[in-house]
Amino acid sequence: MQIPGLATAQIVVEAAATAAFALSGVLVAARKRLDAVGVVVVAGVTAFGGGTLRDVLLDRRPFFWVAHWHYVVGVFLLAIGAMLWMRGRHFKPTERAMLWPDALGLGLFAATGTQLALEGGLPALIAVLMGVVTAVFGGVLRDIVVNEIPAAFSDHRPYAICAFAGGWAAVVAEALGLAQATALLAATALTVGLRLLAVRYDWRLPAWQTTD
Amino acid sequence: MQIPGLATAQIVVEAAATAAFALSGVLVAARKRLDAVGVVVVAGVTAFGGGTLRDVLLDRRPFFWVAHWHYVVGVFLLAIGAMLWMRGRHFKPTERAMLWPDALGLGLFAATGTQLALEGGLPALIAVLMGVVTAVFGGVLRDIVVNEIPAAFSDHRPYAICAFAGGWAAVVAEALGLAQATALLAATALTVGLRLLAVRYDWRLPAWQTTD
Amino acid sequence: MQIPGLATAQIVVEAAATAAFALSGVLVAARKRLDAVGVVVVAGVTAFGGGTLRDVLLDRRPFFWVAHWHYVVGVFLLAIGAMLWMRGRHFKPTERAMLWPDALGLGLFAATGTQLALEGGLPALIAVLMGVVTAVFGGVLRDIVVNEIPAAFSDHRPYAICAFAGGWAAVVAEALGLAQATALLAATALTVGLRLLAVRYDWRLPAWQTTD
Repeated sequence: MQIPGLATAQIVVEAAATAAFALSGVLVAARKRLDAVGVVVVAGVTAFGGGTLRDVLLDRRPFFWVAHWHYVVGVFLLAIGAMLWMRGRHFKPTERAMLWPDALGLGLFAATGTQLALEGGLPALIAVLMGVVTAVFGGVLRDIVVNEIPAAFSDHRPYAICAFAGGWAAVVAEALGLAQATALLAATALTVGLRLLAVRYDWRLPAWQTTD
Repeated sequence: MQIPGLATAQIVVEAAATAAFALSGVLVAARKRLDAVGVVVVAGVTAFGGGTLRDVLLDRRPFFWVAHWHYVVGVFLLAIGAMLWMRGRHFKPTERAMLWPDALGLGLFAATGTQLALEGGLPALIAVLMGVVTAVFGGVLRDIVVNEIPAAFSDHRPYAICAFAGGWAAVVAEALGLAQATALLAATALTVGLRLLAVRYDWRLPAWQTTD
Repeated sequence: MQIPGLATAQIVVEAAATAAFALSGVLVAARKRLDAVGVVVVAGVTAFGGGTLRDVLLDRRPFFWVAHWHYVVGVFLLAIGAMLWMRGRHFKPTERAMLWPDALGLGLFAATGTQLALEGGLPALIAVLMGVVTAVFGGVLRDIVVNEIPAAFSDHRPYAICAFAGGWAAVVAEALGLAQATALLAATALTVGLRLLAVRYDWRLPAWQTTD
């Protein structure tokens, strides 16, 4: 049932996604002119906030970053490194460069979050919401900390909704009795595919037209 | 001890109050021009945030909305429905129309939150604070997410303080040995009565006069 | 091993620090023109928010302010008293007057937070982060509630970083097998010393220079 190399692949994707999330925190913190402490904290909140909130809601311990505290060191070094390196070169990663790792993180975290909640015996809808929380709320907390309306709720681009679809794919795969690794792959692929299509074709979410 | 029909009455009030809270989330999200995902999330945060924060603080699981996930579906449908319907008709529920269900929710959630904490053996003051958190922090989280100072802390109208009074009524009723249903009724009625009086006579909370 | 008088000294420092944190909440709430409910809530969030978030992350119950609910009464009276008294006299405590109790709170809470996490068997880095959360996140939550970017992340002054250093001192003292009371004293002294030096000599954290 174990697909050879998948565990390694998951770790690689997880590390890349965590780095992408942390980097998005660094960029937002930089735009808001936070100090070095703020840059590091916002990077950490963005990278680990979604999974932490999920674990608080599910009452799971230890947190991912407590069990794997080397990731905390990694995010710390990444934030400091990015700060020094970008300052020196007036360089910023383009949205294009961030798209792939961010989409992979969205998909992977939505899938693993949903699967963890299903293992915990939660109803399907709640499990999918936990997947979305895992994937999206790091960025939401990032925006709240820097005093902005969360982009996930206001930029009219499909983001959380791709994670939502991927979560349901994980639920369906589980119901079909597929191996967990297969389900993980399928759910991640669906989220990533939807997200890339949404960006490629500039899909928009319906807006609310207020009269005032 | 069981008052016939009270359980049903409580479910009706609970559903009406949850809907009122969700609707206030929809309206705030609309004013901030969030997208459809934002409208749904803010509706859910407003409806379930207070009870969820209370349960995290009390370390209670499962959350209300996990045990009764049909409420999540209801809030989702309400948010989408309100969005479509109000968009089409340029219609918004007036503050007046929201007053009653919102006041009922404030009272009911303050009473049930306090009673849950008392059952958990917490001191009276803490139990009352848990009641206030249940009743008020959905709206507080709503305002934080949409990047505003919480209205409950800044609009100078008695709101949290009505829930505070209702929570103490639940404590007194418990100390007098009244049936839980009676206590619930009394505490809810006190909160609702105070809130309606406060709005009717335009009571104001003392303001801080700063010199600068 | 017990140093006579230390337990009493810790309680005195703890009360002074809690009062200083609460007072900083009162001042920020006043500047934002919150109402009386807002002033009291923000004072409480600032005083107890850091320890509460740490306990949620560590899954510890009861919270400090639940076990010692007299502190809640104290913060309530302090907030109301400060409001009345300052209003009457157009008086505000200077930053200078707040410096010492605030620095003591920073040091004490960083040390006790780190020690609690070490007792719970967490890795050193995580324990130090828990100390920082305890010491700093009351102020962070305060700023988020009143809709400002947290000062701890944006004012370019060493604050969290002093708590970070103090937390590591607690870790080292533990590793050296020192008595817990000695470790507490050393860690608190280091944080306080660094903070006072930082303010005295106007040390600055590196800023991010963005090009746009």
